[in-house]
Amino acid sequence: MANERTLTIALNTLPRFRAAIACEACERFGSAAGVLAATAGELITVRGLGPVLAGAVRGLDAERVGEEEQRRSLALGIAILTLDDQDYPERLRLIPDPPRVLYRLGDLLPQDGAGIAVIGARAATAYGRTVAERLGRELATAGVTVISGLARGIDGCAHRGALAGGGRTVAVLGTGLDRLYPPEHRRLADDVAAQGALLSEFPLGAEPEPWHFPLRNRVISGLARGVVVVEAAVRSGALGTADMALEQGREVFAIPGPITSPTSAGTNRLIRQGAGLVEGARDVLEAFHDLADRLPAADAGTAAIAGLSVPEQRLLSAIGSAPLPIDDIIRASPGPAAATAALLTALELKGLVRQQPGKIFARV
Amino acid sequence: MANERTLTIALNTLPRFRAAIACEACERFGSAAGVLAATAGELITVRGLGPVLAGAVRGLDAERVGEEEQRRSLALGIAILTLDDQDYPERLRLIPDPPRVLYRLGDLLPQDGAGIAVIGARAATAYGRTVAERLGRELATAGVTVISGLARGIDGCAHRGALAGGGRTVAVLGTGLDRLYPPEHRRLADDVAAQGALLSEFPLGAEPEPWHFPLRNRVISGLARGVVVVEAAVRSGALGTADMALEQGREVFAIPGPITSPTSAGTNRLIRQGAGLVEGARDVLEAFHDLADRLPAADAGTAAIAGLSVPEQRLLSAIGSAPLPIDDIIRASPGPAAATAALLTALELKGLVRQQPGKIFARV
Repeated sequence: MANERTLTIALNTLPRFRAAIACEACERFGSAAGVLAATAGELITVRGLGPVLAGAVRGLDAERVGEEEQRRSLALGIAILTLDDQDYPERLRLIPDPPRVLYRLGDLLPQDGAGIAVIGARAATAYGRTVAERLGRELATAGVTVISGLARGIDGCAHRGALAGGGRTVAVLGTGLDRLYPPEHRRLADDVAAQGALLSEFPLGAEPEPWHFPLRNRVISGLARGVVVVEAAVRSGALGTADMALEQGREVFAIPGPITSPTSAGTNRLIRQGAGLVEGARDVLEAFHDLADRLPAADAGTAAIAGLSVPEQRLLSAIGSAPLPIDDIIRASPGPAAATAALLTALELKGLVRQQPGKIFARV
Repeated sequence: MANERTLTIALNTLPRFRAAIACEACERFGSAAGVLAATAGELITVRGLGPVLAGAVRGLDAERVGEEEQRRSLALGIAILTLDDQDYPERLRLIPDPPRVLYRLGDLLPQDGAGIAVIGARAATAYGRTVAERLGRELATAGVTVISGLARGIDGCAHRGALAGGGRTVAVLGTGLDRLYPPEHRRLADDVAAQGALLSEFPLGAEPEPWHFPLRNRVISGLARGVVVVEAAVRSGALGTADMALEQGREVFAIPGPITSPTSAGTNRLIRQGAGLVEGARDVLEAFHDLADRLPAADAGTAAIAGLSVPEQRLLSAIGSAPLPIDDIIRASPGPAAATAALLTALELKGLVRQQPGKIFARV
């Protein structure tokens, strides 16, 4: 008798034996072995499990198929995780219909469990691409794993940004891990696997079927603690992922964009509906207490500036990071010397300007 | 003894005798006549009223100056309203420091009291200009008066849009009404005066002093029931107007924009702080119960269009508001006649197309 793990993997190779069906069937019949032992009449009492699928379950040579799938995965360097494995991502395990089987190429580290998804339109604009790459890089630099879908457009840029930032990134695919889509992301996929992982709930050889992608999207949001939508049309997969994220209790963020751009119509709508408006990684990190201290220092200065008076702001912007003697600063400032000196002291107290011996000042 | 109105107008001609000072002084001394009768020692007990200004008040030949100002205004076709005049805008009267004197070229109609301000950066981008003009046109078409500052950039575009929409628009200036700024808006100012009004609290001949503009901004927001910021940098006059509007209890709205655009940084920030995100006039009108029904039919159609299939959308956009026989519609449509007829029926059921006797169709 094959073990439960092998049978679970075998069942998961059946096309259209979706996680939601698998979860309900296993609950009904106690285990994968129980599902495989059920009659067709019993099987079709499971929601979404019709006669055709029941026939496929009944006809499955589960032990052989499950073992063969594990052999092939091993040969490709792909790990297979089931719901019961310790390595299975904790956050994903808690969504309503978690994948019972998860293929993994590369590694998941503990910090990947606190990753942020950056997703959006395949038909992205130059604006969206720039922003996705920047956000991916900023998050990665702050030590946050960037999760996305390896799709054309926003997804690819988000992964690339994270890689460029020297950080970690995880891609969730709507195909088997041996069947990359889109094909031009081959190199990118290799890089992601090297600095993170490729994940899929679909068996080896699974094609990019349209119905795979909404399922894939729930895994992206399920893995992440927050989802940032960079660009999305009003009826789009990215907005579907945002809805899924809300159902899963994830924070949803969106990048605003021109009201004249169709790919920003979805993100602007999300913001109107309450999604957090994001102008940079700072806005995402600040939403999570444990991440707020990961903000880069240069960024922190920008925030402090917001509380300055206009003369303080002017003086600060006149001082560069190169040290400057106070006399030069006073000469270059419009007000009287005493006022400029007082402003300098104020900026120093606010931690924005540093005084060096000999009354020489520089920006922090 | 000159009347109170003449003395009020005279006091208002004194440079730096700002409304806030005038209001406090008149409250302290009972009237403009009381202010003019006060000693310098008494005058300087008013907040913001220093010895120099007190000297100017004492030295003012009020009766002569006030009468001369009224004579000159009359000759220019400019009406002068004081706080006590029935014509004085009701909403503006209720702000903390209303102008005690308001110069008006053109007319204010009752509906102008429910106007919406559309404001923003002088250094606007092409995006901001397009949006300001479109929003001005949409609001004007819906019968809403567009209030702005006649400045370069967003303000000018908002006025132009309103004029193009055949609606009403009001410009509040930071100069005397005989001293337009910027000079290239001469023609625009004439058009605004013809389809609305130019307003200013500054006396004839007043120059575009930098300190006039924040004061002007409080009048813009004070006149309006809501303020839409189209584009604004993070430290800008437009954001100042938005702050003022909030203090005055006005609704504040903002147009989102690219996070890569400095002139959208201010509007994106406003949205993050709770300003209503605006994608078009619809979003502004919907915020006011009495305006919600002013949505243009075309706009209402746009909302319904969101639920249409692509062939339905194509057919709808091919049908104009002029009635068209079904044969013409079928001839102009790509699909077979029966399909087109079915689509027409669907559009009719959705209330987007109206059938007239003789199988003649038009958009609703």
